[in-house]
Amino acid sequence: MALLEAEAIPALSRLTPHLSTSYLSTSTIVTLCVFFTLLCACIVIGHLLEENRWANESITALVLGLCSGVVVLLVTKFHSTELLIFSENLFFLYLLPPIIFNAGFQVKKKQFFKNFTTILLFGVFGTVISFCTISVGAFLLIGKTGIVSLSIEDYLAIGAILSATDSVCTLQVLSQDETPLLYSIVFGEGVVNDATSIVLFNSVQTLDFSKLNAVTALKLLGTFLYLFFTSTALGIAVGLISAYIIKTLYFGRHSTDREVALMMLMAYLSYMVAELLDLSGILTIFFCGIVMSHYTWHNVTGSSRITTKHSFATISFIAETFIFLYVGMDALNIDKWKTSKASAGTSIALSSALLALVLIGRAAFVFPIANITNCIKTRGSTKIEFRSQFIIWWAGLMRGAVTIALTYNQFQKSNDTSSQECALMITSTIIVVLFSTLVFGSITKPLIEAVLLRHPKPPVSDSTNIPDDLRLLFLENEDPSDQGNNNQQFGRQSSLSLLIRYPTTTVHYFWRKFDDKFMRPVFGGRGFTRVVHGSSSGEVEEIS
Amino acid sequence: MALLEAEAIPALSRLTPHLSTSYLSTSTIVTLCVFFTLLCACIVIGHLLEENRWANESITALVLGLCSGVVVLLVTKFHSTELLIFSENLFFLYLLPPIIFNAGFQVKKKQFFKNFTTILLFGVFGTVISFCTISVGAFLLIGKTGIVSLSIEDYLAIGAILSATDSVCTLQVLSQDETPLLYSIVFGEGVVNDATSIVLFNSVQTLDFSKLNAVTALKLLGTFLYLFFTSTALGIAVGLISAYIIKTLYFGRHSTDREVALMMLMAYLSYMVAELLDLSGILTIFFCGIVMSHYTWHNVTGSSRITTKHSFATISFIAETFIFLYVGMDALNIDKWKTSKASAGTSIALSSALLALVLIGRAAFVFPIANITNCIKTRGSTKIEFRSQFIIWWAGLMRGAVTIALTYNQFQKSNDTSSQECALMITSTIIVVLFSTLVFGSITKPLIEAVLLRHPKPPVSDSTNIPDDLRLLFLENEDPSDQGNNNQQFGRQSSLSLLIRYPTTTVHYFWRKFDDKFMRPVFGGRGFTRVVHGSSSGEVEEIS
Repeated sequence: MALLEAEAIPALSRLTPHLSTSYLSTSTIVTLCVFFTLLCACIVIGHLLEENRWANESITALVLGLCSGVVVLLVTKFHSTELLIFSENLFFLYLLPPIIFNAGFQVKKKQFFKNFTTILLFGVFGTVISFCTISVGAFLLIGKTGIVSLSIEDYLAIGAILSATDSVCTLQVLSQDETPLLYSIVFGEGVVNDATSIVLFNSVQTLDFSKLNAVTALKLLGTFLYLFFTSTALGIAVGLISAYIIKTLYFGRHSTDREVALMMLMAYLSYMVAELLDLSGILTIFFCGIVMSHYTWHNVTGSSRITTKHSFATISFIAETFIFLYVGMDALNIDKWKTSKASAGTSIALSSALLALVLIGRAAFVFPIANITNCIKTRGSTKIEFRSQFIIWWAGLMRGAVTIALTYNQFQKSNDTSSQECALMITSTIIVVLFSTLVFGSITKPLIEAVLLRHPKPPVSDSTNIPDDLRLLFLENEDPSDQGNNNQQFGRQSSLSLLIRYPTTTVHYFWRKFDDKFMRPVFGGRGFTRVVHGSSSGEVEEIS
Repeated sequence: MALLEAEAIPALSRLTPHLSTSYLSTSTIVTLCVFFTLLCACIVIGHLLEENRWANESITALVLGLCSGVVVLLVTKFHSTELLIFSENLFFLYLLPPIIFNAGFQVKKKQFFKNFTTILLFGVFGTVISFCTISVGAFLLIGKTGIVSLSIEDYLAIGAILSATDSVCTLQVLSQDETPLLYSIVFGEGVVNDATSIVLFNSVQTLDFSKLNAVTALKLLGTFLYLFFTSTALGIAVGLISAYIIKTLYFGRHSTDREVALMMLMAYLSYMVAELLDLSGILTIFFCGIVMSHYTWHNVTGSSRITTKHSFATISFIAETFIFLYVGMDALNIDKWKTSKASAGTSIALSSALLALVLIGRAAFVFPIANITNCIKTRGSTKIEFRSQFIIWWAGLMRGAVTIALTYNQFQKSNDTSSQECALMITSTIIVVLFSTLVFGSITKPLIEAVLLRHPKPPVSDSTNIPDDLRLLFLENEDPSDQGNNNQQFGRQSSLSLLIRYPTTTVHYFWRKFDDKFMRPVFGGRGFTRVVHGSSSGEVEEIS
């Protein structure tokens, strides 16, 4: 927010008459007033339109942002648009971390880890395939046809930029209970995809492409794997530290405010430390969120649980709304449009080309990977039907704030000689983001209803084929006090064959054993810490 | 936070080696890491020291800030101290509003309004007396003795600056249940005092003192009254709008995240709108908090209630800790010390003079006003004993962040010629703040224990002398469904004499009637909105 002000000061000093001396600058206050009023309006209008099948919260915020952008343009008479400029720092420092942390904190861990392999395939390999397809496609479509001429780094950057999906819109439509597999794949892929494309983008910027060969490709892979594992490890470490601190310190004496403050601060700290060490803050804070919801969350009072659960969700919700509002306003940054000097034809051609690449790039990995997963899966487990594949494909067509932020990063800082083409790339990306969010976004709800609801039985269900007794044993039973009995039952049923047939479930079973024996006694977690006061079990809403 | 970064960038770019390209600047990340780590450390250490009779959270944060200031000085080899500079914008835009809002939101309204007259007397008239005493005293002690020579505006500003108390420390020691009258006076005075001194400060800066006469004094009074009433009205209006919106929109369909978001955003918006209209944002957001806890809070789901209650408290707690940390670091801003060029003797003399003025200025109104209140009060109601008067006097001796912020505002922007004397004023104020918080602060707990606990019976009790039947009727009965019965009982007892003898209680009674008849049906509130889902009464912790 504050970064915004600094930029908005010149624009707004023209907007308002001079007021008497005060310790705050008027322009800052005007900017904050405008944004807070718009956010309130977004929430109220979004709530009113919730039942509408064409609108959703993202679209509302985007349209409201566009409208207020028009108002600002009219008021300033097209002179000044600095209020409308998108700030990368604001986005990456303050808006993205709470969204990703909340995603990790609220994720249905059971589902997420059950489909972990599939999610990684889609999120990592899929994004890499999309990155390659779009990069090559951009080189051929845009470079060869002569719309713009860019360097090889720029084409690779476009690949990374346009691989960053924004599946918020689809997730608002999918139901976590009706289609759990589909939901967890779309959700998990969304998070891993964000991280992957940002890591790819950073790798592209770091590496030297003057001698493009197999070594560079291997280096890219090495960098990527290094970032992935170290970031995950850091997130898990910070999460465990928070669990340990709260468990140790607060034993016997709880303080809701301190607990909530410590969780918030440590989550944010994990992101900052990751960025400081040049790791992927997104992956770190995501896994920190998962670990916190598994251990730390169970070590605090009942009030703290409700407070953290809802306040993280609220902060994430505000950040999301703000981003869309901001993207909408940013689209009317006319200086950029003036600099590009492009005719309407060129703009449309370029945007269409990029949009086509997005469609192709996503199709190029969703359908192959889905079918490969289906082949690998044993007869017992669920296949991803074609209908689901279509929805997964569709879910990743929207482009959002990450795309905008990375585009500015790549094309704003280029040298002056190519500024015209860079401006054109920025405006085209903005068109792609607006078009995909507004058009694809508004079709999503009717489309998914059409694809899914014609078949009243959910097309994908993750647990129908696993024998009931095994499911009960491994997945449904969450009460650790019964664990001893389960082991005995498990032994009695001589289910070695089951273990071989359901590897994911087996891993989950051994993880649970390890968790109960080594992790929970140290870090707390469900069933291990007896909350001393301020908590009654009735008060607590469960995060499953 | 973000304002901080911009300042910290030059300082920290020297601190850290150059890292590879990233979308975030390393210095920003380092600054954020440092502050978040320190905040976590403050919380943990503060928790461990809670039982200690000499320490409290403010002192911990202040000492930790001083220590890290020393570390920064050593690391940068005394070259750069920009990390340590206090930012007014950061303070007034992001740190103060949540603290004041939370104060209004969590205040025991019954107690607060019962003692409203006394609180206003102490908070408004007391602060004005303190302002006059300190201004005249500063003119005589500092001006006439020739330590520094300042303009008449500067002396008046010093009066306003040193009248802003910081009673956080005392409130951590006093118990709201054992000494309700004392607690509500100290608490209420603290809030009203902040607002009054800021309003006085602004009036001093705005008015023309070249012709100082009765008209100027009247203008000052007029400005003050205008600001007081309009700010309060604005706060109440925004609070009522939020209650109305949530009651109307969410009837039948609740969404915890949206409710919490709307409450947070509208609270902050009230502060910003007040600042935009040049009113007192502090008073506005305080009354907005009171209205929100009376109406809005009862219109939301049970989870929203717990979430808002604790998340507002947490944010306020983090902001408070951050301020003390920041004040501690700011004290080691050596550039200021170098500019002042003062000998240790001059500094100590000036600081001692200011400290003496603080002690005298506070004594000049606490004891007279307390005795006047005692005389006015009817035989039936409680008197403020001398012991309590002493505690009220002591509670207001600490000076905090408001003092620092206003000092910078007054003395940083002065012209270059007098910069040496201005720097001296700033460093002396910092010494006063550090000394009062560390020394007075650490004595507070033992002192209050000594004064109060020798007498196991609470020395002040607000309800012992009011006849039990009346107390029950007007104050204890919070269930509006019984209101009808009360009216009848009230009539039956022919208690017109009671009404005359207990005016405050009477006002409260008529307010309750008005509230039940006109306000609650429109704006909701306890007993009038039936929460539809997601709430069971067992879940909710009450704000009384």
